Amino acid sequence: MSGSVVIAGLGPGNDALVTPEVTEALAKATDIVGYIPYVARVAERPGLTLHPSDNRVEIDRSRHALEMASEGKHVVVVSSGDPGVFAMAAAVLEAVEHGEPAWRDIDIQILPGITAMLAASAACGAPLGHDFCAINLSDNMKPWELIEKRLRLAAEADFAMAFYNPRSKSRPEGFGKAVKALQEACGDDRPMIFARNVSRPDQTIKIVPLTEVTEDMADMRTVVLLGNSQTRLIERCNADPLIYTPRSVEG
Amino acid sequence: MSGSVVIAGLGPGNDALVTPEVTEALAKATDIVGYIPYVARVAERPGLTLHPSDNRVEIDRSRHALEMASEGKHVVVVSSGDPGVFAMAAAVLEAVEHGEPAWRDIDIQILPGITAMLAASAACGAPLGHDFCAINLSDNMKPWELIEKRLRLAAEADFAMAFYNPRSKSRPEGFGKAVKALQEACGDDRPMIFARNVSRPDQTIKIVPLTEVTEDMADMRTVVLLGNSQTRLIERCNADPLIYTPRSVEG
Repeated sequence: MSGSVVIAGLGPGNDALVTPEVTEALAKATDIVGYIPYVARVAERPGLTLHPSDNRVEIDRSRHALEMASEGKHVVVVSSGDPGVFAMAAAVLEAVEHGEPAWRDIDIQILPGITAMLAASAACGAPLGHDFCAINLSDNMKPWELIEKRLRLAAEADFAMAFYNPRSKSRPEGFGKAVKALQEACGDDRPMIFARNVSRPDQTIKIVPLTEVTEDMADMRTVVLLGNSQTRLIERCNADPLIYTPRSVEG
Repeated sequence: MSGSVVIAGLGPGNDALVTPEVTEALAKATDIVGYIPYVARVAERPGLTLHPSDNRVEIDRSRHALEMASEGKHVVVVSSGDPGVFAMAAAVLEAVEHGEPAWRDIDIQILPGITAMLAASAACGAPLGHDFCAINLSDNMKPWELIEKRLRLAAEADFAMAFYNPRSKSRPEGFGKAVKALQEACGDDRPMIFARNVSRPDQTIKIVPLTEVTEDMADMRTVVLLGNSQTRLIERCNADPLIYTPRSVEG
């Protein structure tokens, strides 16, 4: 019997953002693997075994999924957001490359999901409506100097920007350093957007001019967006402002 | 009676990638506005009026949607992919900013969708699994010099990259120029991925070393991805290779 691994994106939290393709994969699975709060989003049923695991064990979790698949199980690795954006897809493929040769024969599929930056963007308008970049601010996986270099080059390119993992408990100083680099490199008062618990009932969206941003404004449940030099704010009387980055730049 | 405008992402083409939130919005709409092939994806029903329009009339289409909403209609503006990524959300907000003051009081919601680059990434692995940028290669809306500057800075930042609108019929030379700039700036043989008709039954994925890319490899139905300097290819005996960009960079 030949097993499979599906790496599925659950979106940012609201079940109305889970694609039918992912829902169907969950319905066919024999085993669900993932970080505890993501596995908790999958309903228990007979024939399904849940394997929640702690954060920061992505490679162990990936190897476990591949081992079960090679025993004939149909494993779904659940990921928040989109599995290809700072999530489980790259981890599973890293485990495949460095693991058992037979793992390369496993049927592996990746199912996209709504990633946090796009849900956050939609919640406040279209701040990523022009060329943009996505940067993981955690320096667990790369040197801080590289992050700072990317921030400065992204500002020079006048990209709108999205930042994942802005501020961890273990390294809270990183976000403050990123903000300082951005304030220097951008040199203006473009809006920074703090989207916390995006798509969930307790979602909050805060829009703050870049010069007024302080490091305590983000935590690990926040995705942070930054406009480019052209980003516009539309004030409204009866609702929160809308924010968008124009599609065009004058020649 | 107060109307509304919902700007909804239909994803890249496969109905299994349309979120339940978008499906519900379509079911409640009185009017659907959008580019002809996207409106054609919405089933006709009593009480629903379809308003398909041609390409490149985004602002007219947006104004039409806002006018109908101010007359009490519940309008859904359908967008391919995610409406916030090189699609209709920024156009509608531009129309709001420069249009009737009363349009600012209209209930406007944006519903995210699966954008083409993330469906393409999932179809071949996780090439955007590290910091990345998204660039619209069309120079309809911005000068070519700005596009080329961004390509060179993105290469210097060692971003993985996604390219939308790589090659239009009216300006076919743009993609060749972009490839030349990337070949010079990257200076290596990292893989470029051509994902055509992504998520549809006739989807094709081609992986080509950057030095071997030619300008005829892309058209307007293709989204193009480029790895960073660390991107890996996992060869397999019985299936297409998997491609991923590692999560970590050594310090």
